[in-house]
Amino acid sequence: MPPHPPLDLTKGTVEMAHGAGGRAMAQLVRDVFVAAFDNAALRRGDDQATVAMPKGRLVMTTDGHVVTPRAFPGGDIGSLAVHGTVNDVAMGGAVPLYLTAGFIIEEGFALGELAWIAGSMARAARDAGVSIVTGDTKVVERGACDGLFITTAGVGVITDDRLDISGDRARPGDVLLINGPIGDHGVAILSKRENLAFETPIHSDSAPLNGLVAAMVAAAPGIRVLRDPTRGGLAATLNEIAHQSGVGMVVREADVPVREEVRNACELLGLDPLTVANEGKLVAICPPEDAKTLLAAMRAHPLGEAAAIIGTVTDDPDRFVQMETAFGGRRIIDWLAGEQLPRIC
Amino acid sequence: MPPHPPLDLTKGTVEMAHGAGGRAMAQLVRDVFVAAFDNAALRRGDDQATVAMPKGRLVMTTDGHVVTPRAFPGGDIGSLAVHGTVNDVAMGGAVPLYLTAGFIIEEGFALGELAWIAGSMARAARDAGVSIVTGDTKVVERGACDGLFITTAGVGVITDDRLDISGDRARPGDVLLINGPIGDHGVAILSKRENLAFETPIHSDSAPLNGLVAAMVAAAPGIRVLRDPTRGGLAATLNEIAHQSGVGMVVREADVPVREEVRNACELLGLDPLTVANEGKLVAICPPEDAKTLLAAMRAHPLGEAAAIIGTVTDDPDRFVQMETAFGGRRIIDWLAGEQLPRIC
Repeated sequence: MPPHPPLDLTKGTVEMAHGAGGRAMAQLVRDVFVAAFDNAALRRGDDQATVAMPKGRLVMTTDGHVVTPRAFPGGDIGSLAVHGTVNDVAMGGAVPLYLTAGFIIEEGFALGELAWIAGSMARAARDAGVSIVTGDTKVVERGACDGLFITTAGVGVITDDRLDISGDRARPGDVLLINGPIGDHGVAILSKRENLAFETPIHSDSAPLNGLVAAMVAAAPGIRVLRDPTRGGLAATLNEIAHQSGVGMVVREADVPVREEVRNACELLGLDPLTVANEGKLVAICPPEDAKTLLAAMRAHPLGEAAAIIGTVTDDPDRFVQMETAFGGRRIIDWLAGEQLPRIC
Repeated sequence: MPPHPPLDLTKGTVEMAHGAGGRAMAQLVRDVFVAAFDNAALRRGDDQATVAMPKGRLVMTTDGHVVTPRAFPGGDIGSLAVHGTVNDVAMGGAVPLYLTAGFIIEEGFALGELAWIAGSMARAARDAGVSIVTGDTKVVERGACDGLFITTAGVGVITDDRLDISGDRARPGDVLLINGPIGDHGVAILSKRENLAFETPIHSDSAPLNGLVAAMVAAAPGIRVLRDPTRGGLAATLNEIAHQSGVGMVVREADVPVREEVRNACELLGLDPLTVANEGKLVAICPPEDAKTLLAAMRAHPLGEAAAIIGTVTDDPDRFVQMETAFGGRRIIDWLAGEQLPRIC
């Protein structure tokens, strides 16, 4: 039989045959995905990966990624697909170890862009210290999906028996902390989407938070809650936790870090930074006696240099999240009712 | 604030707000997914699940599901999304335990159908003895995806240290077995898609194979390879294994089980059953001395009643998979070059 032509990463496109389970798919998987993610489990060529697992509780998560545009200041759909899943595993207090990646690709997608995105995923995984050990490729006909969707899943392990981190563990009197300024990711996406040029370019904060979390749980194993305020922003995350734990919260407006340029962009765009998505931020809730230690540990890490204590958990049967304004007044921070920024991640 | 209206599962549709990370998404997740998949990890309401893990090697896999139509004789996109991932974990010789589920939904998708599909996933998971412990929901605008895509990932554990099952372990002299007739799934999908009515209705073979695999590895822990011949059919699977292991294969045509009605449908549709997808079949390769024991163990299981020995592994530097015809001749079984049945799973 004639040798199969090599993939043309310059002008070639993804064809239906690349998802058909035959020779073309094997070639795409080998030359694009295995080449980029290179590790022993993937190289073995099975439909599943067998890996060693340290003793401990297992943490699992998954995230679909449909962001548009696929490349934006500070990241792209590939790096986001790695960071999103790494961070959700880390928010369970776990050390992320292995990822899976499922690709749904529209017929006609440029092979060069696919290889570029795979390369970005590989770099993001390396930086986060995780391996993409298995994957899946589906190709759908033109018009059946918007270019490329990536669904990653991740597993990690909690080796420290003392840790018990969940959104249902906040208690009145606990302290709220955040690792830095909010709103960067959403504004970066929107500015690219709307072709807005700001004086100071705004980059997504997309980053792997597992290193920061490792430092935090080592310093303060009594941490009760960790969550990354992605879709829906800080407002949605705090409301979720208040609801799960059956508590209220009071946040001091002046203490919530927001970059000047992000605040200005939000005003221009009619957005509230509290409801704008982040991809490299986390909220931590800890008992009051741990707050100082935890804050110090966060500030000692590059991704927590601008960490701040932003409020406290209250006893409130209505589970209201309230904002204390600079003038001493209070307003309720509600979840966003509708859709502010579709396909932000 | 006014109470949020309940989801209308009769006439309601998925809106962009259902993917926005706010109150509407929380409601969709609670009333559709948590209600259907009901388990302690999901109910906790975090972005990740923390679960106990028996000691052993971890096996991970992922599969995207884009099948059209979404419901077909013998299954639907929901049951398929569970079986596909359960089976890929089982093919590693592992006991599947936990699944994740990522949904990408088109704006305007009927909430009633979504709930029905979630119910089908829940039943399939229960039947397979696995839990769907965490998930993710994205909504894209009308036209940005074709209704619904589901990407599942799964983890399982290998507790028996003797097992070493991989596509690279076939050796000359080994025996090839299959657990039953091929081609049912692809023909079922195609007949529904093309609105064909056969005298004997053909149902997909979609089924969880983990119970069968457990019986097989208990009886013959020396099994070298397990793989489910899905996209690309038996032809692609045998070629993949031949390539991975650096061996050839000879399959006896008369011994490969194909239902009469599937053979007839394939003739009518111009398909070769060898290249048609299956979703409840597996190929096993074992040393010759284990073949009889393994065949008996397969036949003793409801999903292996029609199991058969279909061929042998050969020493062949060209890695050819050959078919021995009823007349004693031989032809090479190649992988499918193009795309025969798009969106079969």
